[in-house]
Amino acid sequence: MRVVKPKLPKLLALLEEKGHDGAVVLGMSNVHYFTGFRGGGAVLVASREGASLLVPQLEYSKAMADAVGIEVRPYYRYPVPGITMPGLIEGTWLDAVARVVEDYGLGRVAANLSSIPHGEAGKLKEKLGEKLAADITSDISKMRSIKEDDEVEAMAAAARVAEAGLRAAVDALAEGLSEVELAGVVDEAMRRAGAEEYSFPTIVAYEENAAYPHTNPTWRRLAQGEVVLIDLGARLHGYCSDITRTMAFGSLPPRSREVAEAVLEAQLAGIDAIAPGVKAEEPDAAARGVLERRGLAKYFIHSLGHGVGIDVHEAPRLSRAAEEELEPGMVVTVEPGVYIAGALGVRIEDMVLVTKKGRRLLTSFERNLF
Amino acid sequence: MRVVKPKLPKLLALLEEKGHDGAVVLGMSNVHYFTGFRGGGAVLVASREGASLLVPQLEYSKAMADAVGIEVRPYYRYPVPGITMPGLIEGTWLDAVARVVEDYGLGRVAANLSSIPHGEAGKLKEKLGEKLAADITSDISKMRSIKEDDEVEAMAAAARVAEAGLRAAVDALAEGLSEVELAGVVDEAMRRAGAEEYSFPTIVAYEENAAYPHTNPTWRRLAQGEVVLIDLGARLHGYCSDITRTMAFGSLPPRSREVAEAVLEAQLAGIDAIAPGVKAEEPDAAARGVLERRGLAKYFIHSLGHGVGIDVHEAPRLSRAAEEELEPGMVVTVEPGVYIAGALGVRIEDMVLVTKKGRRLLTSFERNLF
Repeated sequence: MRVVKPKLPKLLALLEEKGHDGAVVLGMSNVHYFTGFRGGGAVLVASREGASLLVPQLEYSKAMADAVGIEVRPYYRYPVPGITMPGLIEGTWLDAVARVVEDYGLGRVAANLSSIPHGEAGKLKEKLGEKLAADITSDISKMRSIKEDDEVEAMAAAARVAEAGLRAAVDALAEGLSEVELAGVVDEAMRRAGAEEYSFPTIVAYEENAAYPHTNPTWRRLAQGEVVLIDLGARLHGYCSDITRTMAFGSLPPRSREVAEAVLEAQLAGIDAIAPGVKAEEPDAAARGVLERRGLAKYFIHSLGHGVGIDVHEAPRLSRAAEEELEPGMVVTVEPGVYIAGALGVRIEDMVLVTKKGRRLLTSFERNLF
Repeated sequence: MRVVKPKLPKLLALLEEKGHDGAVVLGMSNVHYFTGFRGGGAVLVASREGASLLVPQLEYSKAMADAVGIEVRPYYRYPVPGITMPGLIEGTWLDAVARVVEDYGLGRVAANLSSIPHGEAGKLKEKLGEKLAADITSDISKMRSIKEDDEVEAMAAAARVAEAGLRAAVDALAEGLSEVELAGVVDEAMRRAGAEEYSFPTIVAYEENAAYPHTNPTWRRLAQGEVVLIDLGARLHGYCSDITRTMAFGSLPPRSREVAEAVLEAQLAGIDAIAPGVKAEEPDAAARGVLERRGLAKYFIHSLGHGVGIDVHEAPRLSRAAEEELEPGMVVTVEPGVYIAGALGVRIEDMVLVTKKGRRLLTSFERNLF
């Protein structure tokens, strides 16, 4: 059941437009995007005549299953005697790239150089020499930020999986339950709903621990009147979801409730500000303005949101002074938070698709849980 | 409860030895190793006069809690009006690094350049100019490969957590149980045992799916006489565990049992070959030799193992032609596998500490489960 079509045609169109003969694409998420195969050490060499996916020998059978319609060539520095993999290249990924660039007779080649480790980039430059003519890191990042319908569908399905995790959490809250135990309940529910992986390590944080925007669950136990922050996501059909809810256990003291209500109001303002043609800084400003009026802006210490896709953090960023314009097909999170060190934290996060006319939420879980 | 002491003194000793005035250390795991703080965007600037941990504004309070004894300086491109964080630097991480290098009056600075993204490395070079005098990527990697006692203790505890996951799996096996559901059982048990995170996405693969060395759990349901491969790990006190078991559901057909027994024999041979002073290729050769004699060597399509620590894959590698010598304090996995495409896969993996006199297993879960 392949829900999302590999986006190789978009890369070929880029090569055509820029006048490159071919491209070397590195990095698990980029290769996944263009080929449908997700695995370590894979490199895509694309040309106008065809494309080859180079994978470490151990990934060969998985790549053959997942990367339909693209030639798969395994490489290995020390091939196993007696092994039967057609097209096996003896050498490192660099040797494999050089071989295939040669086989295709490529002249001018582009690569996403900036995003790969400096040491590897240096070796690739040395290997390809003058042929390596352009860096297409930002082109690919921009391309990936605009989702096609099948990608949106996968992400909406991944959001359902995360929401199954949230539902299990709401049902499980109990006095004395530790953060790690609750994280286990949440993770198990996401798996049962079909999660291939988690988008990131699930955050479960109570009260003062929720004042850390990023933290791991601990043995801290839940007490009446505390807030429970859960930030979670699942990968489904290769695509990520990302959602946060802050819920009350028992009845919150007035101050906690005030903070939670302010964050919710800020979030709604941020969501309402999303539309095509809007600068990416505007939703951030809208949410920040609400918190400003409530005297809480100094506790909102990060930007409003980020793009989501194959990676849980990708382009665009919704932050101050972000000049980029939002475009139909972008999927972003809207996640204002208030973090009062030593006291409590509140964050509410949803995934929003920019549409031709405005916006559509990909998440639907009840927000007012306090 | 800090189990593992930050290893900053080892970095300072390296600077002394190499004659550098200071170091810029990037990357989540490296910064974690030297400071005790784990979070995105953090950079350590160490000098003989002191050390500063530079963190994005949103990580400030967590860094203050975790990085005891090191100055923490937050940076943010657009500081929040009214914010109260001492030492806040307005700018990017690059501006923050330049400022602190200046404050310490550093002349000759080393950095772990090779391991960071090429684009970022270029910016750092531009920012520091002639001051950036050496790449210490491999020095840090080598340093991290030799564990101190407190690190070994953390990893042994993390192994216990993973083994709690395995125990839950053994108890849960049932006809019709899907791979994703079983992964949920395993993950929940690791959380209940205290997992801060998973070392990597848990692999649960039945029979022919187990022939992919790396794969995500699917809706494939379990039937009698099939093998169940589970590869899992937990992070505890910041350190990873990594263990694999292949177990039978019901009674295996003779061929499956033969393969499993061969892999176990190969694994024991690999473990027995580990000792200080041994070349890293020797355990691989020992395990491969067993499979050769059983006619299965052509199905063992990866190397024998890898170092484990803060990262689940780190130095050294136990692979063919690995000339490096094993040293006391190294912790490596020993994980031969046989992968017969379309039929079945078997892998058995343990964590082994190289000691002064030989080796010690950090994992203790029963291996013969077929």
